[in-house]
Amino acid sequence: MAVAIDDTIVAISTAVGEGGIGIVRMSGDKSLGILNKVFKHVKGKETLGMKSYTMRYGHIIDTSTGETVDEVIVSFMKAPNTYTREDVVEIYCHGGMVAVRKILSILLKNGARLAEPGEFTKRAFLNGRIDLSQAEAVIDLIRAKTDESMKIAFEQSQGKLSKKIKKLMDKLLGMLAHVEAAVAFPEDDIENVVNQEIIDTGREIQREIDGLVESADTGKILREGLNTIIVGKPNVGKSSLLNEFLQEKRAIVTDIPGTTRDVIEEYINIKGIPVKLVDTAGIRHTEDIVERIGVERSKEYIDRADLIIFMIDASRPLENEDFEIIEYLKGKKTIVIVNKMDLPIKVDIDFIKDKFNRDFVITTSINTGEGIEAIKDKIVDMVFEGNVSSRDVYVTNVRHRDILLKAKESVGKGVEALIAGLPIDFASIDFRDAYLKLGEITGDTVEEDIIDRIFTDFCIGK
Amino acid sequence: MAVAIDDTIVAISTAVGEGGIGIVRMSGDKSLGILNKVFKHVKGKETLGMKSYTMRYGHIIDTSTGETVDEVIVSFMKAPNTYTREDVVEIYCHGGMVAVRKILSILLKNGARLAEPGEFTKRAFLNGRIDLSQAEAVIDLIRAKTDESMKIAFEQSQGKLSKKIKKLMDKLLGMLAHVEAAVAFPEDDIENVVNQEIIDTGREIQREIDGLVESADTGKILREGLNTIIVGKPNVGKSSLLNEFLQEKRAIVTDIPGTTRDVIEEYINIKGIPVKLVDTAGIRHTEDIVERIGVERSKEYIDRADLIIFMIDASRPLENEDFEIIEYLKGKKTIVIVNKMDLPIKVDIDFIKDKFNRDFVITTSINTGEGIEAIKDKIVDMVFEGNVSSRDVYVTNVRHRDILLKAKESVGKGVEALIAGLPIDFASIDFRDAYLKLGEITGDTVEEDIIDRIFTDFCIGK
Repeated sequence: MAVAIDDTIVAISTAVGEGGIGIVRMSGDKSLGILNKVFKHVKGKETLGMKSYTMRYGHIIDTSTGETVDEVIVSFMKAPNTYTREDVVEIYCHGGMVAVRKILSILLKNGARLAEPGEFTKRAFLNGRIDLSQAEAVIDLIRAKTDESMKIAFEQSQGKLSKKIKKLMDKLLGMLAHVEAAVAFPEDDIENVVNQEIIDTGREIQREIDGLVESADTGKILREGLNTIIVGKPNVGKSSLLNEFLQEKRAIVTDIPGTTRDVIEEYINIKGIPVKLVDTAGIRHTEDIVERIGVERSKEYIDRADLIIFMIDASRPLENEDFEIIEYLKGKKTIVIVNKMDLPIKVDIDFIKDKFNRDFVITTSINTGEGIEAIKDKIVDMVFEGNVSSRDVYVTNVRHRDILLKAKESVGKGVEALIAGLPIDFASIDFRDAYLKLGEITGDTVEEDIIDRIFTDFCIGK
Repeated sequence: MAVAIDDTIVAISTAVGEGGIGIVRMSGDKSLGILNKVFKHVKGKETLGMKSYTMRYGHIIDTSTGETVDEVIVSFMKAPNTYTREDVVEIYCHGGMVAVRKILSILLKNGARLAEPGEFTKRAFLNGRIDLSQAEAVIDLIRAKTDESMKIAFEQSQGKLSKKIKKLMDKLLGMLAHVEAAVAFPEDDIENVVNQEIIDTGREIQREIDGLVESADTGKILREGLNTIIVGKPNVGKSSLLNEFLQEKRAIVTDIPGTTRDVIEEYINIKGIPVKLVDTAGIRHTEDIVERIGVERSKEYIDRADLIIFMIDASRPLENEDFEIIEYLKGKKTIVIVNKMDLPIKVDIDFIKDKFNRDFVITTSINTGEGIEAIKDKIVDMVFEGNVSSRDVYVTNVRHRDILLKAKESVGKGVEALIAGLPIDFASIDFRDAYLKLGEITGDTVEEDIIDRIFTDFCIGK
């Protein structure tokens, strides 16, 4: 990774908004020198003399006016034992909008450059502290919506996935060495034995990749949330269900910053699974999605959802609208909730069970609490496909999943070539391809534009 | 301040949302002990041995499961040289929703108590590091919307207002000493001389309080923003004006967290003045306020505004709607903008100038840029009432303003009593009242429930 990184970057590293403390962070050779220009220690100690992993209390001075801007604590961490492996300076100032921006602008005027999104983490990667999949996990950690998703992101950040990938890469290297030996000494009669060994290892790699890819559906949901929509006629109990879900303490609301401020994503934590209820006007309206936007438009939402929760009122006969939805939901991942079972039953539950997978039809009375646990358990079942917590490593990232599928394909081609008795060099090319592909996960063999694209998705200041 | 503060508090000290770094902060005797239970240094160093103002790198462990939760840097600041004057521990972890909450919950399980809003700052006050008006400035600092408002809050946090108030209190103490001397030695013939001195000092205090109170209107606007509404017929140029205002780089958008998430306040920075455009659906609609909610309802908004910007289209004759608004705006703080002066003029500008204060009628062509600086300057003029930056101290807080008015009244009563020749004890009571009142600003004489109320308005974690 011969990328020159010789300037000092700066960014606001805390979330925007009202908070007690804000952090402005610098990384690079000149960090301490720049701090020295703008920071006045309360007892006048020389800033350049700061020891690594120490803090000081003082004031930030606007160098253009000489005015004192804020009361701060600063810290210095000396390379290479830092986040970026470069010198890092952090300024802890008052939270809110103005102090952090003001200090940022002063540092910019004094020689720092504004960091790009994810540039601190990018430097950690380019400077070899972490590999690419570890770097990618950093933003997953920050965006994690539940303990479960955080745990998986954290493990990835600590290198759990990389380790697995590197093992596969080592195996591929071993195969390539065998192939090269066979090419170098073609007169040796061991070729057939070697071939069989290589074929076996290749199949083993394919199986291991299969295992990883199988984890990707669950992994993606844990990372990004289970895109869910609740449909049903007015007054069927959607609000009550939502309220039940929201009672789980750690319901998380996120405002997605961006151009439109109308888009709000709300996450409900159902036993560790981030269940994402997407709506342009917030969850309180989501429940009325069919009423509000009509059956036609709600079909669009249904098509994009990972899970549809369809609610039926057991105390009222099915109507045309219900039948229309039932037809439309055929074959889609649906949990059907037959609610109000505490009232006299007016629907034919067997009919409903026939229309859907009967395991996914749950009878409830949200008023009395009956069936709510069953709904939650069913959601967990669907996400983990029965494999709750049995997996060691999760692939949570679509990029990784796609690479794994391509690597598996290359390994498969190589194996087929050997079986078909084609010259061993053919297989060699395929195994090399697979190796290079997997290296795109760890970052060993990845191209610069892919790296850039990955970090563009980061937040500023990390 | 004999308030027992013997527990260790904890809170998330960074803003909620997506950010690179989150901070969880503890304050109290047990901070380091609690950290010791949950933090594992990367090289196994003993946490209890941490020196003040140093940091360490390691992991937070969930003590209930033994699992590693996050990779963190921790810092320790030993009492009394800390924000609260107590031992302070800060944990710098991954930003976002989950890491900070998880770490918070682990600290709570290990003996810390969840801090109330503003409790760190309250402790700084109760432990005597800062006085009450300085403490109050901390939240103003965090909520500041422009450099100008931040500067004033910062100065208050550094004790600028307190110093002024304490001077007044000293003067009152001096007066009281004189009064008491006069009461103790009534036979002395100096009473009349003393009385005159006291009367003079009392009047001086009144004048000084007047000066402070006069700054309060501007101060309040700098702290809370200038509540502004733009009215005018469709197509008069409101959007263009807003866009011009928004071009000033540091336009600040705040989502006010709370029960309704529909309420959005948008601040535009006009030469350091936070101009607040309030609307329930965001600024883009504000411009259409009259069209959208009708003349009747916009009157309500007009009545609540600090400033009305009324726009007239110079190229169209005035209509009934204009006349109705003109009548209604009589006597209200209004800037009238006669826009589209680049087109053939169809309105009688003299008529408009007669209807309003002619200094506040500005002719513009927003399309060509004519008159925009004049609008901004006029807003600045109105806010500072011609005294831009001439003031030394600003009273920004309504609580302080009210106290000052009451203190002034008490001083006045005392002075009147002396002039009326009433027994000198009468005046003594009034001066003492004034002294006690002013002490409510610095916190010297304030009651506990007022303190509690002040900090309730703070954010968590500060």
